[in-house]
Amino acid sequence: MAVLLTGAALAQTDAPLAYTADGKMIFPKDYRSGVFLSSGFDMAYVEGTSQAHIFDNVFVNREAYDGFLKAGVWPDKTVLVLEVRDAGSDPFVKRGQFQSSAPPRTEAHVKDAAKGGWAFYVFGSGNAPGALMPKTANCYSCHEQNAATDTAFTQFYPTLNPAK
Amino acid sequence: MAVLLTGAALAQTDAPLAYTADGKMIFPKDYRSGVFLSSGFDMAYVEGTSQAHIFDNVFVNREAYDGFLKAGVWPDKTVLVLEVRDAGSDPFVKRGQFQSSAPPRTEAHVKDAAKGGWAFYVFGSGNAPGALMPKTANCYSCHEQNAATDTAFTQFYPTLNPAK
Repeated sequence: MAVLLTGAALAQTDAPLAYTADGKMIFPKDYRSGVFLSSGFDMAYVEGTSQAHIFDNVFVNREAYDGFLKAGVWPDKTVLVLEVRDAGSDPFVKRGQFQSSAPPRTEAHVKDAAKGGWAFYVFGSGNAPGALMPKTANCYSCHEQNAATDTAFTQFYPTLNPAK
Repeated sequence: MAVLLTGAALAQTDAPLAYTADGKMIFPKDYRSGVFLSSGFDMAYVEGTSQAHIFDNVFVNREAYDGFLKAGVWPDKTVLVLEVRDAGSDPFVKRGQFQSSAPPRTEAHVKDAAKGGWAFYVFGSGNAPGALMPKTANCYSCHEQNAATDTAFTQFYPTLNPAK
């Protein structure tokens, strides 16, 4: 018997890549079970004044990671999740920064041939489904021009760095 | 038929926790397949001048993570791996820091009842087996006094933070 997934059913799927009926990406709640690629600290691609300290952690689903290691390109249904966390504070830490447990902001960079290739989604608070970033947004052209491999910034991921 | 593992055989084990015949800890080569706990940036517990920027990434074997979530204490055979990476540089990155792909320095903090409880091991270059830190080293007393739970610094791991 075929099962017709309604929007509500899809919203609880464990799959890393699924959409709502209106084209938003469902929050991939198990993204931290994937492969950790790297963290950055206060990273920015444009000059500017510094703000409150932040960390960015990047994870990718394990099937995609294994596929990339094998073929050097990201397979279809790759889901890269960017998690942005505030820095925490603790009197015990005399120097440097650690990641706070405040809820992070999350975005996804996904490769889905059925949707025309790479796309960015920004999730709402409370892990609400992510709206598609318009294809005219800077993130698309910047990734195409500057990413080391297949529009993903593998130059910042130690275990995938092509210069390694 | 029982299989007697020689030192050479053990050195190739996939288990997260195994030792050489002379009591060193064998490098747990798959530690990045475990659960990523967090990253810190330039963290230090003592005052001092800043040095070259570093990141520290912490991973734990998945069985231990699941056990901790369930029971609130780390189960026997917990293997926490600290990976210290230099910051990289790239003209494209205008602010902040990312992790370089230079080989990291690694240490482990392991709980093994058969060896008297928690212990620290520092791995050599080329992922050589790790020597046991003497039980009189500061790391033991500091972790006992300042760690949030069971001698591990869960206060710095967002998904395990007891204050969360």
